[in-house]
Amino acid sequence: MTDKTCPLCQGSNEILLWQDEQCRVIAAPQPGYPGFCRVIWREHVREMTDLSQSQRAHMMAVIWAVVESLRQVINPAKINLASLGNQVPHLHWHVIPRFADDAHFPDAVWAAPRRAGVEHGLDMNALRQDLQRCLNGLAD
Amino acid sequence: MTDKTCPLCQGSNEILLWQDEQCRVIAAPQPGYPGFCRVIWREHVREMTDLSQSQRAHMMAVIWAVVESLRQVINPAKINLASLGNQVPHLHWHVIPRFADDAHFPDAVWAAPRRAGVEHGLDMNALRQDLQRCLNGLAD
Repeated sequence: MTDKTCPLCQGSNEILLWQDEQCRVIAAPQPGYPGFCRVIWREHVREMTDLSQSQRAHMMAVIWAVVESLRQVINPAKINLASLGNQVPHLHWHVIPRFADDAHFPDAVWAAPRRAGVEHGLDMNALRQDLQRCLNGLAD
Repeated sequence: MTDKTCPLCQGSNEILLWQDEQCRVIAAPQPGYPGFCRVIWREHVREMTDLSQSQRAHMMAVIWAVVESLRQVINPAKINLASLGNQVPHLHWHVIPRFADDAHFPDAVWAAPRRAGVEHGLDMNALRQDLQRCLNGLAD
Protein backbone atom coordinates (compact mmCIF):
# COMPACT_ATOMS: atom_id res chain seq x y z
CA MET A 1 0.00 0.00 0.00
CA THR A 2 1.60 3.26 -1.13
CA ASP A 3 0.34 6.80 -1.65
CA LYS A 4 1.68 8.59 -4.70
CA THR A 5 1.47 11.99 -2.99
CA CYS A 6 3.32 10.87 0.17
CA PRO A 7 6.99 11.94 0.47
CA LEU A 8 7.76 9.01 2.78
CA CYS A 9 6.34 6.52 0.27
CA GLN A 10 8.64 8.02 -2.37
CA GLY A 11 11.69 8.38 -0.12
CA SER A 12 13.89 10.30 -2.54
CA ASN A 13 17.17 11.98 -1.52
CA GLU A 14 17.47 10.06 1.72
CA ILE A 15 20.69 9.09 3.53
CA LEU A 16 19.92 5.43 4.08
CA LEU A 17 21.57 3.81 7.13
CA TRP A 18 19.80 0.46 7.21
CA GLN A 19 16.71 -1.20 5.76
CA ASP A 20 14.79 -4.41 5.59
CA GLU A 21 11.49 -5.29 3.98
CA GLN A 22 9.44 -3.66 6.73
CA CYS A 23 11.19 -0.41 7.52
CA ARG A 24 14.23 1.78 6.92
CA VAL A 25 16.50 3.96 9.03
CA ILE A 26 17.71 7.23 7.56
CA ALA A 27 19.98 9.99 8.75
CA ALA A 28 17.94 13.18 8.66
CA PRO A 29 20.43 15.84 9.75
CA GLN A 30 18.80 19.16 10.69
CA PRO A 31 20.50 22.50 11.28
CA GLY A 32 22.16 22.10 14.69
CA TYR A 33 21.22 18.40 14.88
CA PRO A 34 23.55 16.35 12.68
CA GLY A 35 22.63 13.14 14.54
CA PHE A 36 18.88 13.39 13.87
CA CYS A 37 17.62 10.01 12.54
CA ARG A 38 14.28 8.68 11.36
CA VAL A 39 12.81 5.21 11.31
CA ILE A 40 10.19 4.91 8.58
CA TRP A 41 7.68 2.11 8.11
CA ARG A 42 7.66 0.86 4.51
CA GLU A 43 3.90 0.80 3.95
CA HIS A 44 1.68 3.86 4.09
CA VAL A 45 0.23 3.23 7.55
CA ARG A 46 -1.00 5.96 9.87
CA GLU A 47 -0.67 4.81 13.48
CA MET A 48 1.46 2.30 15.41
CA THR A 49 -1.75 0.58 16.53
CA ASP A 50 -2.64 -0.01 12.87
CA LEU A 51 0.29 -2.46 12.79
CA SER A 52 0.10 -6.03 14.06
CA GLN A 53 1.78 -6.73 17.39
CA SER A 54 4.75 -8.39 15.69
CA GLN A 55 5.12 -5.48 13.24
CA ARG A 56 5.05 -3.02 16.17
CA ALA A 57 7.65 -5.07 18.02
CA HIS A 58 9.85 -5.15 14.92
CA MET A 59 9.68 -1.40 14.42
CA MET A 60 10.41 -0.74 18.10
CA ALA A 61 13.38 -3.14 18.00
CA VAL A 62 14.81 -1.12 15.11
CA ILE A 63 14.22 2.10 17.06
CA TRP A 64 15.99 0.73 20.15
CA ALA A 65 18.94 -0.20 17.93
CA VAL A 66 19.11 3.34 16.59
CA VAL A 67 18.98 4.66 20.16
CA GLU A 68 21.74 2.28 21.29
CA SER A 69 23.94 3.21 18.33
CA LEU A 70 23.48 6.93 18.83
CA ARG A 71 24.28 6.57 22.53
CA GLN A 72 27.35 4.56 21.61
CA VAL A 73 28.59 6.84 18.84
CA ILE A 74 27.93 10.35 20.19
CA ASN A 75 26.94 9.87 23.83
CA PRO A 76 24.13 12.45 24.04
CA ALA A 77 22.77 13.92 27.28
CA LYS A 78 19.34 12.55 26.34
CA ILE A 79 17.58 10.72 23.56
CA ASN A 80 14.30 12.20 22.35
CA LEU A 81 11.80 9.93 20.63
CA ALA A 82 8.67 11.06 18.85
CA SER A 83 6.09 9.74 16.43
CA LEU A 84 3.88 12.66 15.42
CA GLY A 85 2.83 12.39 11.77
CA ASN A 86 0.55 15.41 11.75
CA GLN A 87 2.23 16.80 8.65
CA VAL A 88 3.01 13.51 6.92
CA PRO A 89 0.62 10.81 8.19
CA HIS A 90 2.89 7.93 7.18
CA LEU A 91 4.23 6.11 10.22
CA HIS A 92 7.72 7.32 11.16
CA TRP A 93 9.73 8.01 14.30
CA HIS A 94 12.18 10.78 15.06
CA VAL A 95 15.23 9.73 17.10
CA ILE A 96 17.05 12.84 18.24
CA PRO A 97 20.24 12.93 20.30
CA ARG A 98 20.13 15.96 22.58
CA PHE A 99 22.87 17.92 24.36
CA ALA A 100 22.64 20.49 27.15
CA ASP A 101 24.15 23.15 24.87
CA ASP A 102 22.04 22.46 21.77
CA ALA A 103 19.73 25.20 20.49
CA HIS A 104 16.54 24.09 22.28
CA PHE A 105 17.60 22.13 25.37
CA PRO A 106 15.77 21.38 27.66
CA ASP A 107 12.79 22.12 25.41
CA ALA A 108 11.64 19.96 22.52
CA VAL A 109 13.33 20.67 19.18
CA TRP A 110 9.94 21.92 17.92
CA ALA A 111 9.88 24.77 20.46
CA ALA A 112 11.45 28.18 19.86
CA PRO A 113 15.26 28.00 20.16
CA ARG A 114 16.82 29.26 23.38
CA ARG A 115 20.32 29.93 22.02
CA ALA A 116 22.45 29.59 18.89
CA GLY A 117 23.36 26.09 20.02
CA VAL A 118 26.42 23.92 19.61
CA GLU A 119 26.38 21.23 16.92
CA HIS A 120 27.55 17.81 18.06
CA GLY A 121 28.77 16.14 14.91
CA LEU A 122 28.99 12.42 14.42
CA ASP A 123 30.83 9.96 12.23
CA MET A 124 28.07 8.71 9.94
CA ASN A 125 30.07 5.62 8.97
CA ALA A 126 30.58 4.71 12.62
CA LEU A 127 26.84 5.09 13.17
CA ARG A 128 26.03 2.93 10.15
CA GLN A 129 28.46 0.23 11.30
CA ASP A 130 27.24 0.22 14.88
CA LEU A 131 23.64 0.07 13.70
CA GLN A 132 24.47 -2.91 11.52
CA ARG A 133 26.02 -4.57 14.58
CA CYS A 134 22.95 -3.83 16.73
CA LEU A 135 20.53 -5.02 14.06
CA ASN A 136 22.42 -8.17 13.14
CA GLY A 137 20.21 -11.10 13.75
CA LEU A 138 17.00 -9.09 14.04
CA ALA A 139 14.29 -11.28 12.56
CA ASP A 140 12.98 -9.77 9.33
CA MET B 1 15.51 3.30 42.87
CA THR B 2 13.93 6.71 43.47
CA ASP B 3 15.19 10.28 43.41
CA LYS B 4 13.87 12.53 46.17
CA THR B 5 14.07 15.62 43.96
CA CYS B 6 12.24 14.03 41.00
CA PRO B 7 8.58 15.07 40.56
CA LEU B 8 7.78 11.81 38.72
CA CYS B 9 9.18 9.73 41.58
CA GLN B 10 6.89 11.63 43.95
CA GLY B 11 3.83 11.63 41.67
CA SER B 12 1.64 13.91 43.76
CA ASN B 13 -1.62 15.44 42.50
CA GLU B 14 -1.93 13.06 39.60
CA ILE B 15 -5.14 11.82 37.96
CA LEU B 16 -4.40 8.12 37.98
CA LEU B 17 -6.06 6.06 35.23
CA TRP B 18 -4.28 2.72 35.67
CA GLN B 19 -1.21 1.29 37.34
CA ASP B 20 0.70 -1.85 38.00
CA GLU B 21 4.00 -2.49 39.72
CA GLN B 22 6.07 -1.31 36.76
CA CYS B 23 4.31 1.78 35.48
CA ARG B 24 1.28 4.04 35.74
CA VAL B 25 -0.98 5.89 33.32
CA ILE B 26 -2.18 9.36 34.27
CA ALA B 27 -4.44 11.89 32.66
CA ALA B 28 -2.38 15.06 32.25
CA PRO B 29 -4.87 17.54 30.77
CA GLN B 30 -3.22 20.64 29.34
CA PRO B 31 -4.92 23.86 28.21
CA GLY B 32 -6.56 22.95 24.90
CA TYR B 33 -5.66 19.27 25.30
CA PRO B 34 -8.00 17.58 27.80
CA GLY B 35 -7.07 14.13 26.45
CA PHE B 36 -3.32 14.46 27.08
CA CYS B 37 -2.08 11.34 28.92
CA ARG B 38 1.25 10.18 30.28
CA VAL B 39 2.71 6.75 30.87
CA ILE B 40 5.33 6.87 33.62
CA TRP B 41 7.82 4.17 34.52
CA ARG B 42 7.84 3.47 38.26
CA GLU B 43 11.61 3.48 38.81
CA HIS B 44 13.83 6.50 38.22
CA VAL B 45 15.28 5.32 34.90
CA ARG B 46 16.53 7.66 32.20
CA GLU B 47 16.19 5.98 28.80
CA MET B 48 14.07 3.20 27.28
CA THR B 49 17.26 1.33 26.45
CA ASP B 50 18.14 1.29 30.17
CA LEU B 51 15.20 -1.10 30.61
CA SER B 52 15.38 -4.82 29.90
CA GLN B 53 13.70 -6.02 26.72
CA SER B 54 10.74 -7.39 28.65
CA GLN B 55 10.37 -4.14 30.62
CA ARG B 56 10.44 -2.16 27.36
CA ALA B 57 7.84 -4.46 25.84
CA HIS B 58 5.64 -4.05 28.92
CA MET B 59 5.82 -0.26 28.82
CA MET B 60 5.09 -0.18 25.09
CA ALA B 61 2.12 -2.53 25.56
CA VAL B 62 0.69 -0.08 28.10
CA ILE B 63 1.29 2.79 25.67
CA TRP B 64 -0.50 0.96 22.82
CA ALA B 65 -3.42 0.40 25.16
CA VAL B 66 -3.60 4.11 25.94
CA VAL B 67 -3.46 4.87 22.21
CA GLU B 68 -6.23 2.35 21.47
CA SER B 69 -8.42 3.72 24.25
CA LEU B 70 -7.95 7.34 23.18
CA ARG B 71 -8.76 6.40 19.58
CA GLN B 72 -11.84 4.56 20.80
CA VAL B 73 -13.07 7.25 23.19
CA ILE B 74 -12.40 10.50 21.30
CA ASN B 75 -11.40 9.47 17.76
CA PRO B 76 -8.59 11.98 17.17
CA ALA B 77 -7.22 12.93 13.75
CA LYS B 78 -3.79 11.70 14.88
CA ILE B 79 -2.05 10.31 17.92
CA ASN B 80 1.24 11.95 18.88
CA LEU B 81 3.74 9.96 20.95
CA ALA B 82 6.88 11.36 22.52
CA SER B 83 9.44 10.42 25.11
CA LEU B 84 11.67 13.45 25.67
CA GLY B 85 12.73 13.73 29.33
CA ASN B 86 15.01 16.72 28.86
CA GLN B 87 13.34 18.58 31.71
CA VAL B 88 12.54 15.59 33.93
CA PRO B 89 14.92 12.73 33.09
CA HIS B 90 12.64 10.05 34.54
CA LEU B 91 11.30 7.79 31.80
CA HIS B 92 7.82 8.84 30.69
CA TRP B 93 5.80 9.05 27.48
CA HIS B 94 3.36 11.69 26.31
CA VAL B 95 0.32 10.34 24.46
CA ILE B 96 -1.50 13.23 22.85
CA PRO B 97 -4.69 13.02 20.80
CA ARG B 98 -4.56 15.66 18.07
CA PHE B 99 -7.29 17.33 16.02
CA ALA B 100 -7.06 19.43 12.86
CA ASP B 101 -8.55 22.42 14.70
CA ASP B 102 -6.44 22.21 17.87
CA ALA B 103 -4.12 25.11 18.71
CA HIS B 104 -0.94 23.73 17.12
CA PHE B 105 -2.02 21.32 14.36
CA PRO B 106 -0.18 20.21 12.23
CA ASP B 107 2.80 21.27 14.34
CA ALA B 108 3.95 19.58 17.53
CA VAL B 109 2.25 20.80 20.72
CA TRP B 110 5.64 22.23 21.77
CA ALA B 111 5.71 24.65 18.81
CA ALA B 112 4.15 28.12 18.89
CA PRO B 113 0.35 27.92 18.61
CA ARG B 114 -1.22 28.68 15.23
CA ARG B 115 -4.70 29.56 16.47
CA ALA B 116 -6.85 29.70 19.62
CA GLY B 117 -7.75 26.07 19.04
CA VAL B 118 -10.83 24.01 19.77
CA GLU B 119 -10.81 21.77 22.85
CA HIS B 120 -11.99 18.21 22.25
CA GLY B 121 -13.20 17.04 25.62
CA LEU B 122 -13.45 13.46 26.69
CA ASP B 123 -15.29 11.36 29.23
CA MET B 124 -12.53 10.48 31.68
CA ASN B 125 -14.54 7.60 33.13
CA ALA B 126 -15.05 6.13 29.66
CA LEU B 127 -11.32 6.41 29.04
CA ARG B 128 -10.50 4.74 32.36
CA GLN B 129 -12.94 1.91 31.66
CA ASP B 130 -11.74 1.33 28.13
CA LEU B 131 -8.14 1.35 29.31
CA GLN B 132 -8.98 -1.25 31.92
CA ARG B 133 -10.53 -3.36 29.16
CA CYS B 134 -7.46 -2.97 26.91
CA LEU B 135 -5.05 -3.76 29.74
CA ASN B 136 -6.97 -6.70 31.13
CA GLY B 137 -4.75 -9.71 30.98
CA LEU B 138 -1.54 -7.77 30.39
CA ALA B 139 1.15 -9.71 32.20
CA ASP B 140 2.49 -7.74 35.14
